Amino acid sequence: MDFRIEKDTMGEVQVPANAYFGAQTQRSIDNFKIAQDINRMPKEIISAFAYLKKAAAITNAEAGVLPKEKSDLIGRVCDEILEGKLDEYFPLVVWQTGSGTQSNMNVNEVVAYRGHVLNGGQLSDKEKFLHPNDDVNKSQSSNDTFPTAMHIAAYKMLLEVTIPGIERLRNTLAQKSKEFMHVVKIGRTHFMDATPLTLGQEFSGYVSQLDHGLRAIKNTLPHLSELALGGTAVGTGINTPEGYSENVAKHIAALTGLPFVTAENKFESLAAHDAIVEAHGALKTVAVSLMKIANDIRMLCSGPRSGIGEIFIPDNEPGSSIMPGKVNPTQCEALTMIAAQVLGNDVAINVGGSMGHFELNVFKPVMIYNFLHSARLIGDGCMSFDEKCAVGIEPIEANIKKHVDNSLMLVTSLNTKIGYYKAAEIAQKAHKEGTTLKEMAVKLGYVTPEEFDQWVVPANMVGKIEG
Amino acid sequence: MDFRIEKDTMGEVQVPANAYFGAQTQRSIDNFKIAQDINRMPKEIISAFAYLKKAAAITNAEAGVLPKEKSDLIGRVCDEILEGKLDEYFPLVVWQTGSGTQSNMNVNEVVAYRGHVLNGGQLSDKEKFLHPNDDVNKSQSSNDTFPTAMHIAAYKMLLEVTIPGIERLRNTLAQKSKEFMHVVKIGRTHFMDATPLTLGQEFSGYVSQLDHGLRAIKNTLPHLSELALGGTAVGTGINTPEGYSENVAKHIAALTGLPFVTAENKFESLAAHDAIVEAHGALKTVAVSLMKIANDIRMLCSGPRSGIGEIFIPDNEPGSSIMPGKVNPTQCEALTMIAAQVLGNDVAINVGGSMGHFELNVFKPVMIYNFLHSARLIGDGCMSFDEKCAVGIEPIEANIKKHVDNSLMLVTSLNTKIGYYKAAEIAQKAHKEGTTLKEMAVKLGYVTPEEFDQWVVPANMVGKIEG
Amino acid sequence: MDFRIEKDTMGEVQVPANAYFGAQTQRSIDNFKIAQDINRMPKEIISAFAYLKKAAAITNAEAGVLPKEKSDLIGRVCDEILEGKLDEYFPLVVWQTGSGTQSNMNVNEVVAYRGHVLNGGQLSDKEKFLHPNDDVNKSQSSNDTFPTAMHIAAYKMLLEVTIPGIERLRNTLAQKSKEFMHVVKIGRTHFMDATPLTLGQEFSGYVSQLDHGLRAIKNTLPHLSELALGGTAVGTGINTPEGYSENVAKHIAALTGLPFVTAENKFESLAAHDAIVEAHGALKTVAVSLMKIANDIRMLCSGPRSGIGEIFIPDNEPGSSIMPGKVNPTQCEALTMIAAQVLGNDVAINVGGSMGHFELNVFKPVMIYNFLHSARLIGDGCMSFDEKCAVGIEPIEANIKKHVDNSLMLVTSLNTKIGYYKAAEIAQKAHKEGTTLKEMAVKLGYVTPEEFDQWVVPANMVGKIEG
Amino acid sequence: MDFRIEKDTMGEVQVPANAYFGAQTQRSIDNFKIAQDINRMPKEIISAFAYLKKAAAITNAEAGVLPKEKSDLIGRVCDEILEGKLDEYFPLVVWQTGSGTQSNMNVNEVVAYRGHVLNGGQLSDKEKFLHPNDDVNKSQSSNDTFPTAMHIAAYKMLLEVTIPGIERLRNTLAQKSKEFMHVVKIGRTHFMDATPLTLGQEFSGYVSQLDHGLRAIKNTLPHLSELALGGTAVGTGINTPEGYSENVAKHIAALTGLPFVTAENKFESLAAHDAIVEAHGALKTVAVSLMKIANDIRMLCSGPRSGIGEIFIPDNEPGSSIMPGKVNPTQCEALTMIAAQVLGNDVAINVGGSMGHFELNVFKPVMIYNFLHSARLIGDGCMSFDEKCAVGIEPIEANIKKHVDNSLMLVTSLNTKIGYYKAAEIAQKAHKEGTTLKEMAVKLGYVTPEEFDQWVVPANMVGKIEG
Repeated sequence: MDFRIEKDTMGEVQVPANAYFGAQTQRSIDNFKIAQDINRMPKEIISAFAYLKKAAAITNAEAGVLPKEKSDLIGRVCDEILEGKLDEYFPLVVWQTGSGTQSNMNVNEVVAYRGHVLNGGQLSDKEKFLHPNDDVNKSQSSNDTFPTAMHIAAYKMLLEVTIPGIERLRNTLAQKSKEFMHVVKIGRTHFMDATPLTLGQEFSGYVSQLDHGLRAIKNTLPHLSELALGGTAVGTGINTPEGYSENVAKHIAALTGLPFVTAENKFESLAAHDAIVEAHGALKTVAVSLMKIANDIRMLCSGPRSGIGEIFIPDNEPGSSIMPGKVNPTQCEALTMIAAQVLGNDVAINVGGSMGHFELNVFKPVMIYNFLHSARLIGDGCMSFDEKCAVGIEPIEANIKKHVDNSLMLVTSLNTKIGYYKAAEIAQKAHKEGTTLKEMAVKLGYVTPEEFDQWVVPANMVGKIEG
Repeated sequence: MDFRIEKDTMGEVQVPANAYFGAQTQRSIDNFKIAQDINRMPKEIISAFAYLKKAAAITNAEAGVLPKEKSDLIGRVCDEILEGKLDEYFPLVVWQTGSGTQSNMNVNEVVAYRGHVLNGGQLSDKEKFLHPNDDVNKSQSSNDTFPTAMHIAAYKMLLEVTIPGIERLRNTLAQKSKEFMHVVKIGRTHFMDATPLTLGQEFSGYVSQLDHGLRAIKNTLPHLSELALGGTAVGTGINTPEGYSENVAKHIAALTGLPFVTAENKFESLAAHDAIVEAHGALKTVAVSLMKIANDIRMLCSGPRSGIGEIFIPDNEPGSSIMPGKVNPTQCEALTMIAAQVLGNDVAINVGGSMGHFELNVFKPVMIYNFLHSARLIGDGCMSFDEKCAVGIEPIEANIKKHVDNSLMLVTSLNTKIGYYKAAEIAQKAHKEGTTLKEMAVKLGYVTPEEFDQWVVPANMVGKIEG
Repeated sequence: MDFRIEKDTMGEVQVPANAYFGAQTQRSIDNFKIAQDINRMPKEIISAFAYLKKAAAITNAEAGVLPKEKSDLIGRVCDEILEGKLDEYFPLVVWQTGSGTQSNMNVNEVVAYRGHVLNGGQLSDKEKFLHPNDDVNKSQSSNDTFPTAMHIAAYKMLLEVTIPGIERLRNTLAQKSKEFMHVVKIGRTHFMDATPLTLGQEFSGYVSQLDHGLRAIKNTLPHLSELALGGTAVGTGINTPEGYSENVAKHIAALTGLPFVTAENKFESLAAHDAIVEAHGALKTVAVSLMKIANDIRMLCSGPRSGIGEIFIPDNEPGSSIMPGKVNPTQCEALTMIAAQVLGNDVAINVGGSMGHFELNVFKPVMIYNFLHSARLIGDGCMSFDEKCAVGIEPIEANIKKHVDNSLMLVTSLNTKIGYYKAAEIAQKAHKEGTTLKEMAVKLGYVTPEEFDQWVVPANMVGKIEG
Repeated sequence: MDFRIEKDTMGEVQVPANAYFGAQTQRSIDNFKIAQDINRMPKEIISAFAYLKKAAAITNAEAGVLPKEKSDLIGRVCDEILEGKLDEYFPLVVWQTGSGTQSNMNVNEVVAYRGHVLNGGQLSDKEKFLHPNDDVNKSQSSNDTFPTAMHIAAYKMLLEVTIPGIERLRNTLAQKSKEFMHVVKIGRTHFMDATPLTLGQEFSGYVSQLDHGLRAIKNTLPHLSELALGGTAVGTGINTPEGYSENVAKHIAALTGLPFVTAENKFESLAAHDAIVEAHGALKTVAVSLMKIANDIRMLCSGPRSGIGEIFIPDNEPGSSIMPGKVNPTQCEALTMIAAQVLGNDVAINVGGSMGHFELNVFKPVMIYNFLHSARLIGDGCMSFDEKCAVGIEPIEANIKKHVDNSLMLVTSLNTKIGYYKAAEIAQKAHKEGTTLKEMAVKLGYVTPEEFDQWVVPANMVGKIEG
């Protein structure tokens, strides 16, 4: 490979001749040979940096500390980054310095050098038109840019992927709930037969879980909307022009179309990432909900002949490489694996979040890596589960009817007529002797056949039904 | 010990002659010999049951399904429970049935039997005036009472212990932040010397963390305010009178003085405990904050001679059994251990929350046990830390001044004068040769001594200061 | 309450007149008002301290640094502690200094003052015969005694409670596996019907899980057998006589009957508690196994009429306060809640274990609290589950037979005769048309009825059976 | 793109014309659009499948159930997979069916179709020489192949990456420990000054941690060496020839050069992945150790002027984009972030491991994904930390000497001369009045200057030193 020489404050470094990055990016590649093939800094962070570098350049120009020409040039490169044209020049991994300094410098270098070329220069020029630190990073520090990029990336992912995915699944389940609202089925508590409810009621619980989960996520957005930018090195805002924090937040808000504001306390924004911890707390709550929902659905469709078998789900692929004709609840499995991953990611985030020291938390990359992973998985997972499974769910009425008719727990409706103890006696004896409830109730002399038929009606045991 | 015979639907059981509990409580004692000396069902759950049993009795009487006389009697026993008079009759452990049925029945039995005695009866009477199931548990199921008790207990603990504890610590730290707002000190990022800030600014970050944490907790209260009661066995509300759910929630709100409402979806309330998962997500966020704050404080006071030594904290006890005169940051240690515990409790809650099946989550006791543990520890821990440590924090000005004066990172204020690269050269050479910044800056010819003194002023590097 | 005055190096403290503890215990009570009613230092730690204080006294006497008379007196009090006679004088909580110094001093004080009284003195005497630091704590530091007590307590609990509990359950399951070895039943993968196996084979998997789990626990015992004692303040062994470390370990081994040895590196033993982290890693593995086993068993016994219903488990108590006659798998629920708790405790231990600094880890109390909790819960939980559930498991042969006979997955045995694709076609069409496999196989012309009967025999599909 | 038509038991599917994979791979691509750009099934799993498919083909040929010609052809394709020549044909993600069936079929298809081409056929041929199910998957099921691949991949990664990385770091630290064995420095407990030790002793604790960690990992290898292969669909070994399990394990052992054996219980191997849970328990123990070690090192090198500053670490890159000349402990940061990740991965594995049901755990992909991630990160992270940080650590003797000379805790050596209480008085007063220990000791009249100089010698307080 051809190389050129780039310099930073520590000296000269060989860099691939045509790479838009410079010395510090190359040092990071050389110094952190850790899972380089699988753990690149998430692309959403790179995009977030593009927004913020452009916004900073505009703000700096407005404040008179950066020439308009340089600001425009920086903006042009940032646009190219957002279009994905420069992806290959962001090779750094998550496992680098804990402040993300090297990724900030990677962006600074790419913007400066690509800008230099756009401006008619050559990569081999010793002096470049834009300087990574003095121009592109002006009025900034890694310590405030990286957490700003974290919030931009997290907020965008939640709004563009996570929430839409959950909402779509929620809406399908709500539609199913409505459709199935009059399908009376047996309830199950402790995995044991219980009093009846309707399949639509059962599904309404899932909808309510996701509704609450969406609210939980949305409750965490205000903290995520706070941007650290303007705090620079330790939160004091050293080397920033007057009004910079507020103005740069406004520009980021304008560029992204999202309601970002400057953080109410910059010391908090650099030294702690509680906003990430808090918001991921909402994501793990949704993961818990999804585990419950997907588990229920795979158990409800279990069988086809020796399980519960109360619903159909779509057959998407052959289920077994050895058992011919087998179909499995694979979308449930993907979704529950995702839930397990999110519960793990939560702990990684907690550990990282708890270990900030003094003016800086240096677990930034691992925190945002896990956050974006979870937010993406939940969004994609819900979308996949919705499209390939939920939309196709249908009741298997014959099995549902058989189960509800057999149930001994219908006896509960006799509590208010003959008392809990006699009702229990009927159920226990029917179970022991293998009779129907009615046979045993009459045999014990507690009710007449007519009373039984009048009092024990599954459809009357499900309460008021909406819709 | 003397015994009497009590009966339930499965037969006769020997019960201590003077115990107010009955057959099902005794069965649970016998069947769950698991950590009985250390893991009793939290007393807050018993109190919550007292509120709800009283509210249910009132509601039942109003609905005409329970005689006023019985309702009043139930209320009297509940008041005794709330006064702590019957504590010894609630011996059951967390590790019982996952629906908490046995604790619900324990309360039903104590209320029925103590009520019978208050009514002039004797424990040895075969028939009691109040029936545990048919009277005390009327219009209820374990499946809706236990989750209702969970929410009552959790909400009360947050409001009475957790939030006041955090607020008190927050207020002390805010006061300290104000007091220390002009104490210029060295910043530290990556544990390395950085640009200066004031001690008050540093503490303002802690205040902001706790402010955000308090908001996070408060965001979760609406979900916790939803009560399952009225859902009974599977969420359908079987065996409840008209209007029961709304009315019983109103009575619980009145009795507790807290804004409880009936849950918007009872199927969710029984089958999932996402409200607990969500609210504990806020608690773990606060735990993460507390770990950070307590770690900082113990490192800032480290020494007394060979550490950082920038603050004093109160000496509360001899620190070592072997090293005479040693004083340790013991309140920091208690608080960080609490943080570790809360992070663990969070996982127990996540696992329990994710494994509800069909109409019921049967990890109820373990979930509320961990929730109340965390809520209590954070509240008590903040209170202790505040009273025995935070209120006594004082700066050690001599050390603070020495550190800031020595710092090479003051060079940062030269960036905007001579550029990042020359500034770096000054710092690196000063470090290597052990000189002051000023000496090296002048020696390298980048600034005059006068310029240096004018440009490099720590107090000018800390930005605008509030207050 | 009456008080007397005790002194430590920080001054005078009022102590309950008759309490055997002194100034430092009282300071800790006053300084750490955190969950005092629920989180006392585990009693196993107090017992472990009794062993080690006695052993240290003997070793000190042998080394000639403590008079025999004092050594004997210390030993007598330690014996009283082991008999539980002095329990009320150990009131401190887990949430104290992270080195456990206060619990070490609590023990030192109780031994000194009770010893003084045994020696004919009075608690109100200004000078006591035994001094807490200079005599009872001789050749020791909290920094080496507390971790030694951790290992003693952990090792004993594993050997006396955890392992016996697991082994007992393992043996019952092994017995059941043998009994059920010829009961052919349907297999289930992905919750879906699969090829058959025997119920005994299914249970043999549980046995194998516990066998591996027991091995995993036993693999961690050597690290736990290493004792920190002799490291004193920072691991160097300052203020200990020649040969002390080895000798005191020998005496502890002799007193406890367990194979304790002096740690190979004392710096590790004080500064890290990886032995606890490692051993709890084995406990969490067992928790994972127990979750699986208990989940299977409750699903296998689900029903009684609308679930899987392939096994009976004992009915121990009424299952519902509203649904008469309901019986629930309550022992499974207790055990799975325990598993959830252990998974949470694991994280608390990991966080604590990871945050030791320099010469001392100061998360000692929270680590051992969680460790002992898990070890106890697993032991007690297995015992309870064994006695109240596992021993009574019986197959429900009618349901088992019905399920296996219906299964479409018996078609798998045709793979080697007619190929996977034709076999799949048979199963898919039989499923769609609701026929038996045989009907469809013959209808499609792939086999004759005779061939089918010869080739598709569930009992021939379960492989070689042991026993 | 050009397509060809492939078929499976559910019908026809369009597949890229030149792709070696078939219908089921394509279905999985279409059905699981979840994080497809970042979460491919780990390449180590694909390689493991290559070993096992080759071994199975050989075993089948030896058993006479597969023609030698087909077996050889399968082997040839497996070799190509191992050489990385077919990487692009394994596009599936982790978030698929929980049994990994689709990845097994992906491998079956690639082997069959590439084999067909190697054999002179064309991808567009309707009939292929090798059949994915009937030939390549012969005597196998996804249910036993995927867990076998998990164990092969995990074992290999531990032996080839994880253990060598840890050992290399361990050896460097041992070398440093030896070099620094006589550098007397102050000890620190609770972050506070304590009695002295040598820098080499401090480092010996790290070595001991890693030694124990290596043993912990190795203890888990026997369980990982057990292979599920031969259990087929549910553990019974249906459709396998006589002796298959043992023979195929032998061939895998031979091909990989690792001591694999057939699992002692196949039901356990399919239904549970406790071996993964257990082995990751060892990895998390090492993560805990690494967090401790890396934290210590970054605190020891903190400064350069206002921290502890007792060691140098190499300067690898500029540390700040705003603070010129700043150098940060970036390798420590990468390593501690890795530790946080491993602690999170542990929870994902625990959750997945605990939720197997009946004959199959269907969290296989998420479990092995997290396992391999951790094993890789620890191995790579230790290597990087070793090479870029540990090897360059040097003591800063001036600071070390200053700290030890100032320490008040040297007073501990007076305990055995004048008692703990008088020693405490000296230290407390010296601290309060800012004097040296000696000045105060003499002033209080407890020792003469000569006695002090004789008794208080830091180098005599560090115990016996090895080496």
